[in-house]
Amino acid sequence: MINIALTIEYDGTDFFGWQIQPDKRTVQEEIERTLSEITGEKIKITGAGRTDTGVHALGQTANFKLNSDFAPDTIKKALNGILPKDILIKNAREVPEAFNSRFDAVSKIYKYYISKGRTAVYRRFRWEIFYDLSVEPINDCCRFLIGKKDFRSFCKLDKERENFMCDIKNALWTEDAEEYIFTIEADRFLHKMVRTIVGTLVDVGRQKITPEDFRKIFGNRDRKIAGMTAPAQGLFLEKVIYPE
Amino acid sequence: MINIALTIEYDGTDFFGWQIQPDKRTVQEEIERTLSEITGEKIKITGAGRTDTGVHALGQTANFKLNSDFAPDTIKKALNGILPKDILIKNAREVPEAFNSRFDAVSKIYKYYISKGRTAVYRRFRWEIFYDLSVEPINDCCRFLIGKKDFRSFCKLDKERENFMCDIKNALWTEDAEEYIFTIEADRFLHKMVRTIVGTLVDVGRQKITPEDFRKIFGNRDRKIAGMTAPAQGLFLEKVIYPE
Repeated sequence: MINIALTIEYDGTDFFGWQIQPDKRTVQEEIERTLSEITGEKIKITGAGRTDTGVHALGQTANFKLNSDFAPDTIKKALNGILPKDILIKNAREVPEAFNSRFDAVSKIYKYYISKGRTAVYRRFRWEIFYDLSVEPINDCCRFLIGKKDFRSFCKLDKERENFMCDIKNALWTEDAEEYIFTIEADRFLHKMVRTIVGTLVDVGRQKITPEDFRKIFGNRDRKIAGMTAPAQGLFLEKVIYPE
Repeated sequence: MINIALTIEYDGTDFFGWQIQPDKRTVQEEIERTLSEITGEKIKITGAGRTDTGVHALGQTANFKLNSDFAPDTIKKALNGILPKDILIKNAREVPEAFNSRFDAVSKIYKYYISKGRTAVYRRFRWEIFYDLSVEPINDCCRFLIGKKDFRSFCKLDKERENFMCDIKNALWTEDAEEYIFTIEADRFLHKMVRTIVGTLVDVGRQKITPEDFRKIFGNRDRKIAGMTAPAQGLFLEKVIYPE
């Protein structure tokens, strides 16, 4: 039995997210089906995390166990030869048998891209907004985000008694002439957390709320008072980080 | 009669280029048809230059004459409201009656993007190559390109006795971890010229030919000895420059 880890890029536009669901086109299902076809074994893959419908990835990771003796590079080439063009296997490597893409991840980095006005070329990969944002108060909030915090106010509540604590290692908002880019690294992310943070930071940038209001939203622990959920198409899972 | 100039972005993937052709989806035809619909007049637009099937634009320009009294900003908003999502009017402004997008252009800037290996997310906007390139000899050739030269060896010969002289103002090849970017500015470009230059520069970067060979290709004035024509999807018309 060998354990193989994959690094995966995908254009999320035409997928119902990462995770397998009946009768939906998902990234996990495409890769599992193709792996089963290549190896003749029934393969189940474990992703580092789910991404929602329309969310993209430059560095999703996943692993799977295999009985047959395939070289990782052969698997990578075979997958890339068969998979549709919106999925790309960037890397395949053998890992220790105990390795688990989800539980061994130390942190993940997401980026969120916002276009200043419309974009024809990058419309599948940007949220288009039509007002100016003040970056200074947004980065005030970003500095506040760093550390261990309860993100109950910034997620979709899927379960009643979940653990809402996330350790934010980095959070930064940058801009150039064409766009804003929000980068965030954390040990874990709750459902729709990045998109809710982005929606709320945009409210700060428009001066609809102050950085002080932003900090209060944490204390209130109530999703209803945070900002809108930013649309999926601006979000990229950039990288999953593992111990050296 | 007013004269209106447009700045236009498009994702060239699903167009048969800029110029109107019977029974083909073209950028010019989409804009002319929509303008006629908005204004009730039969409108003809003049583009700064044609782009081929699959070539993109971030800053194509065009102008048209109009009898009705529409504010440029109204035209821009109406066009963006009706045009398909792969065309975007970035700017509309009134210009002097004699202004002609094609003949008044001082220069154009094109960029060509090459992905180092496959890309799922940007596959519509990159040429994917699978070998390393040495940037130093490529930039030797770029420096040689600058100035007035006969580009007969680097174009598709559409007519027998064309003028092949182009004045190259800038040419530069850069790279980062993910991609190579070639930027070129000239007073005019011949048919498929940028893509033929890129294809030949890639041969230099792979050391299939030397910078000395590259220079000789100019002297030989024979298209058959230049490199392959790089594919359309990596090419962007970035900007058309007019006198201040």
